[in-house]
Amino acid sequence: MTGSVLAVDLGGTNLRVAVVSADGVVSHRRSLPTEAAAGPEAVADRIATLLEETATAAGMLADVPAGVAVPGPVEPHQGVVYFMPNLPGWRNFALGAALRRRTRRLIQIANDGNCAALGESRFGVGAGVRDLIYLALGTGVGGGIISDGRLIEGVSGVAGEVGHVTVALDGPRCTCGSIGCLEAFVSGWAITREAKIIATTDDGAAIRRAAAGKPITPTVIALAASDGDPAALALLDRAGRALGAGVGSFINLFNPELVVIGGGVATLGEALMAPARRALASHTFPEQRACARLVESALGDDTALYGAAALAFGTANGPGTVQSDMSERRVNA
Amino acid sequence: MTGSVLAVDLGGTNLRVAVVSADGVVSHRRSLPTEAAAGPEAVADRIATLLEETATAAGMLADVPAGVAVPGPVEPHQGVVYFMPNLPGWRNFALGAALRRRTRRLIQIANDGNCAALGESRFGVGAGVRDLIYLALGTGVGGGIISDGRLIEGVSGVAGEVGHVTVALDGPRCTCGSIGCLEAFVSGWAITREAKIIATTDDGAAIRRAAAGKPITPTVIALAASDGDPAALALLDRAGRALGAGVGSFINLFNPELVVIGGGVATLGEALMAPARRALASHTFPEQRACARLVESALGDDTALYGAAALAFGTANGPGTVQSDMSERRVNA
Repeated sequence: MTGSVLAVDLGGTNLRVAVVSADGVVSHRRSLPTEAAAGPEAVADRIATLLEETATAAGMLADVPAGVAVPGPVEPHQGVVYFMPNLPGWRNFALGAALRRRTRRLIQIANDGNCAALGESRFGVGAGVRDLIYLALGTGVGGGIISDGRLIEGVSGVAGEVGHVTVALDGPRCTCGSIGCLEAFVSGWAITREAKIIATTDDGAAIRRAAAGKPITPTVIALAASDGDPAALALLDRAGRALGAGVGSFINLFNPELVVIGGGVATLGEALMAPARRALASHTFPEQRACARLVESALGDDTALYGAAALAFGTANGPGTVQSDMSERRVNA
Repeated sequence: MTGSVLAVDLGGTNLRVAVVSADGVVSHRRSLPTEAAAGPEAVADRIATLLEETATAAGMLADVPAGVAVPGPVEPHQGVVYFMPNLPGWRNFALGAALRRRTRRLIQIANDGNCAALGESRFGVGAGVRDLIYLALGTGVGGGIISDGRLIEGVSGVAGEVGHVTVALDGPRCTCGSIGCLEAFVSGWAITREAKIIATTDDGAAIRRAAAGKPITPTVIALAASDGDPAALALLDRAGRALGAGVGSFINLFNPELVVIGGGVATLGEALMAPARRALASHTFPEQRACARLVESALGDDTALYGAAALAFGTANGPGTVQSDMSERRVNA
């Protein structure tokens, strides 16, 4: 099955594996609960088992490589996970070695935000684009930066923390410990935190009505905003302004051709995106702004899975790696 | 004179040319007033004349390349200057072609901030470092970003605007038209703007005394701060906090090994740098922070000149460029 790789998207709740072909066809999807509480060795067991089940079902050779997207910072050369904010017990865990030992495959591991940037640049709206920034507006804000066709990794592999740039010196506290991060304005948790406070006040009637007794979520705020509720509109306006200023900073720093926005919060609509576009226009140089398009991700929930595949294809196409090994073996056979 | 190149630092006031050897020895320095009012063609004439006088004085071959640092954004492949904030009449001026026509040399042109980053990474405190950010805190704030050994240029060559990232959504207006840019807090003009306002108030006695009837400059503020003046200390504290938050953002984004600070404002001392270091610590992830050293530039006023030389050496060492042409010619002679 040349021309396909194995892709793993490890999440805090679910673990997903699939086969992805060079032209982006996803097949043989499987998933399992991550069962993160059991710790990293047990999670590595589950990943390896699911990988081999998938490979067998797809009739794949034993040395087809696998790419793995993980929700935490990773040392990219050896695949050591520094830590996982949402998975207990991961501290400098050598996931790459653990999976290589269990599967005998070439394994490439990267942070899911960085993976997603790779996925967009290989399979998504960024196909063919050499300068691209990907932002995932989910519960948190992650992403990755591709400059001149290469992922920016940094000296220890943890570059690309696009959610944790300061957009407001004296802004709200972020869960990372810092102050005024982009994530502290425009993430799912930040929007929810603000909305919960508003809901306890006289101004929160529309938000309470939209929640209808269920938990307050960003979707609830969007619903109240679409009914014209001033408090919900003001909340999303502030989040949108922060988003525009943050993306504007990235545009001035990286001069990208494309800024791709993914994640659930990106779907909240014009109450968020209109102020974001206004702020973006006033926070960028004309030259940089003229080059940059702001677009929505087209890969949806599969962005990181596609990125894991892109990682593995990088391995497969690189010098001295699986595919060349495979051809050599065929020649010798 | 193999092993040396010509380096040009074009400023709004002065034009400087020198010979720089591969191991960083600067010789044959010459300078002229830029006379920017005469427009880009006349400035190109002056650069070409000074280049050829310098080359003749140094006994250099006609095909030794030249690097040129300019105070504005540049398209790097052809050397087209998009505009110059402080030089009138420069709008999409093909300085590269103009200098190639006049000198028959290989010419490489880059923004002076980007050049300075290259200079630090080849000749300065960043020698051997592959992930480096350079910030020049001067009248404005410029700089450049080197990731995995390569200058980040962006899709049209204007990446690296490190002074124009938003650190305060609702901060002071920047001269670029945006709001809350790093430059609007920590540049020479921003510090002076604040100080001039303070000097008109009751709180401004110490600043007025430090100015002693002369114009208020950042050095005046530093003097008042060193005497313990609360207003000057508060001003530099705010500027320092912005600097720390901005550099912190860069550290989270790029995971650099080194952040090099140059320019006159960087020499204002602890009243600026102590709050900057505190803010930096609280605005970065521990992993990224542990990798990054914050250091002062050692190249001083010559940073961009060294960078222009680094540009030219890049040309000289690249494929199909001057040095290989020269060897071919020797073989054929």
